[in-house]
Amino acid sequence: MTEVRVAGVGLTRFGSHPERAGRDLFAAAASRAFADADVDRGAVDELNYGNFMGALSENQSHQAPLMAEAAGVRCPATRYEEACASAGVAVREAVRTVRSGAADVVLAGGMERMTNLDTGAATEGLAIAADDLFEVRSGVTFPGAYALMARAYFDAHGGDRRDLAHVASKNHANAVPNEFAQYRREVSVEEALDAPPVATPLHLYDACPITDGASALVLVSDSYAETHDLDAPVAVTGTGQGTDRMALADRADVARTPAATDAATTAYDDADVAPDDVDVAEVHDCFTVAEVLAIESLGFVDRGEGISAARDGLTTADGDLPVNLSGGLKAKGHPVGATGGSQIAELTRLLRGDHPNADHVPGAEVGVAHNAGGTVASAVVHVLEVAE
Amino acid sequence: MTEVRVAGVGLTRFGSHPERAGRDLFAAAASRAFADADVDRGAVDELNYGNFMGALSENQSHQAPLMAEAAGVRCPATRYEEACASAGVAVREAVRTVRSGAADVVLAGGMERMTNLDTGAATEGLAIAADDLFEVRSGVTFPGAYALMARAYFDAHGGDRRDLAHVASKNHANAVPNEFAQYRREVSVEEALDAPPVATPLHLYDACPITDGASALVLVSDSYAETHDLDAPVAVTGTGQGTDRMALADRADVARTPAATDAATTAYDDADVAPDDVDVAEVHDCFTVAEVLAIESLGFVDRGEGISAARDGLTTADGDLPVNLSGGLKAKGHPVGATGGSQIAELTRLLRGDHPNADHVPGAEVGVAHNAGGTVASAVVHVLEVAE
Repeated sequence: MTEVRVAGVGLTRFGSHPERAGRDLFAAAASRAFADADVDRGAVDELNYGNFMGALSENQSHQAPLMAEAAGVRCPATRYEEACASAGVAVREAVRTVRSGAADVVLAGGMERMTNLDTGAATEGLAIAADDLFEVRSGVTFPGAYALMARAYFDAHGGDRRDLAHVASKNHANAVPNEFAQYRREVSVEEALDAPPVATPLHLYDACPITDGASALVLVSDSYAETHDLDAPVAVTGTGQGTDRMALADRADVARTPAATDAATTAYDDADVAPDDVDVAEVHDCFTVAEVLAIESLGFVDRGEGISAARDGLTTADGDLPVNLSGGLKAKGHPVGATGGSQIAELTRLLRGDHPNADHVPGAEVGVAHNAGGTVASAVVHVLEVAE
Repeated sequence: MTEVRVAGVGLTRFGSHPERAGRDLFAAAASRAFADADVDRGAVDELNYGNFMGALSENQSHQAPLMAEAAGVRCPATRYEEACASAGVAVREAVRTVRSGAADVVLAGGMERMTNLDTGAATEGLAIAADDLFEVRSGVTFPGAYALMARAYFDAHGGDRRDLAHVASKNHANAVPNEFAQYRREVSVEEALDAPPVATPLHLYDACPITDGASALVLVSDSYAETHDLDAPVAVTGTGQGTDRMALADRADVARTPAATDAATTAYDDADVAPDDVDVAEVHDCFTVAEVLAIESLGFVDRGEGISAARDGLTTADGDLPVNLSGGLKAKGHPVGATGGSQIAELTRLLRGDHPNADHVPGAEVGVAHNAGGTVASAVVHVLEVAE
């Protein structure tokens, strides 16, 4: 079977870019990806693009043709929207398209502009990823939804705010050297504990920020990489996607995320790896508790043990399984439609050894990316490996 | 290679459904598709779903998990957004997924709710499919954009409002027997000519209406159809997609639609058919002039000859190549995110012989669907054939 290689990755700095339209952000990320890949734009067969809330933040849907133009490619271009997993599904379809032989070179990624909205409008905009009829109209926005999940987790397994603060502190520390991160400063556990509440038990540093940014990946078939003598040592060897009921009230247990478990199971089978094989992971920590649930769904720890993983050092930069060495959504930032592509870009840099945090994972061979939509009603998992 | 069969199709009546949420509409279409296919919901491997403006009309993005739930399927579910071609790209990816062997059964379709918005809000909502920075802020909405295309066409090739009125009158006549159509009444050429102007030279009957509705298709591999003894005589044998620059001002010639030409060329090559082989077509007549441009891009007539095709009877119900026997977007209605799936459903019924207008195309073996986004910045073309 055709193997899919990551030929190049490109990111904008994540943060606030009030002076740049969305198309400008994606153009910048794509330019970096083409330069990194040493692939000509004319070679691109398809563009798979993720965006979540452009209809609200830029009065702009139908963004795929615009982004093809911005990226300088002329080819079929498709937008994927799966809330915060929009770029994840865009990448997944790119992987499957290259594997099927329908394309040799696909540009995949995403973009989001959010900081041009005020906090209220951004919060309402994000809420369209939840169930309008049965959640949003009842007053639930995402901090509240994840607070409910955190409470359910604490009730089932124990743990407390201090455990979550360790997740925040870890990810902020990881972001410091990352040139693309929004918040490159350390946050101590005590500082996180002292921050104002957002939705109890979640406080300010339990939540990811509002972010502008873009990600782009040049994905190619192994035969294309060989023919064109590309330096593309990282392969996407596994892809999986899962779907759950949308509203928390319709789920049997909100202290777990079965869509992510389904996605991970599929991706591991696809790659023929086990959780124990994984050396490094980027997971969807839109809230600190989301990282806890993610590492359980990914099988890195047993149920009920995710809560202590950061505190105990398992997932810290020098732990056995570093999680979110990029800084994660928490500190690197979360431009919703770009995040799934950014995770793959960061893992690629870590596995290639050219990430500023790569010295924490010398010799790493297997990486996993976990991208979730809403309260994990959607999840996409990818396995990356250093090709032999 | 695996051949993709249309095992079943389902539609809601197109029109105004103020009492039904979007999820209800899609559930109804999916139920009909499963019944038509005689396929169990549990067999569905993936859901590919198109929606355009749910963020505005229902305060609801991230619709794919909701629609999976509504349709009673539990599987990876993905939303595609490509303006008015949203369901077209959803179907295209479903076809490619089945062909690749990654799935045996895919539910594909789409939904749009629009009539709950007032005309001004609906017009502004539709405008997010155009370029916000360089078109919408200058005051261009879609009636104006297609009026510019009509003027450019008249300047290049001649023709007048009467020619366009023949397109409207033809499609309204076709809609009369269609139980799913929004406007089941005849409109004479004179009535169309006498209607009030919308954007000169386009008048009221040159424009499609605002519509609620949903479409669903059960697409299966030929081996699945055989194993499960399904009656699925229609195959999707060709798929193609094209992309153009978004803003009309950036195009060399706005009296043609090269994205559709690209999509058609790819789809014909894929199916190994030529335009002359086509017996019946459903094309994207959001405005009458769009049908003129479509049949030229599809190669049914030479450039400059599309304008007279309805008037001369080529594309009427009893012509050599009937176009929009469903009534088209013009009279059947245009629930944006559902339209691409509806076209495939209507063609399937025509090729199977169970469409109320099927007696106009006895023995038809090859059908073509043309679905466009915006001012054809995106286009998707599918070829359907009666399987041997």
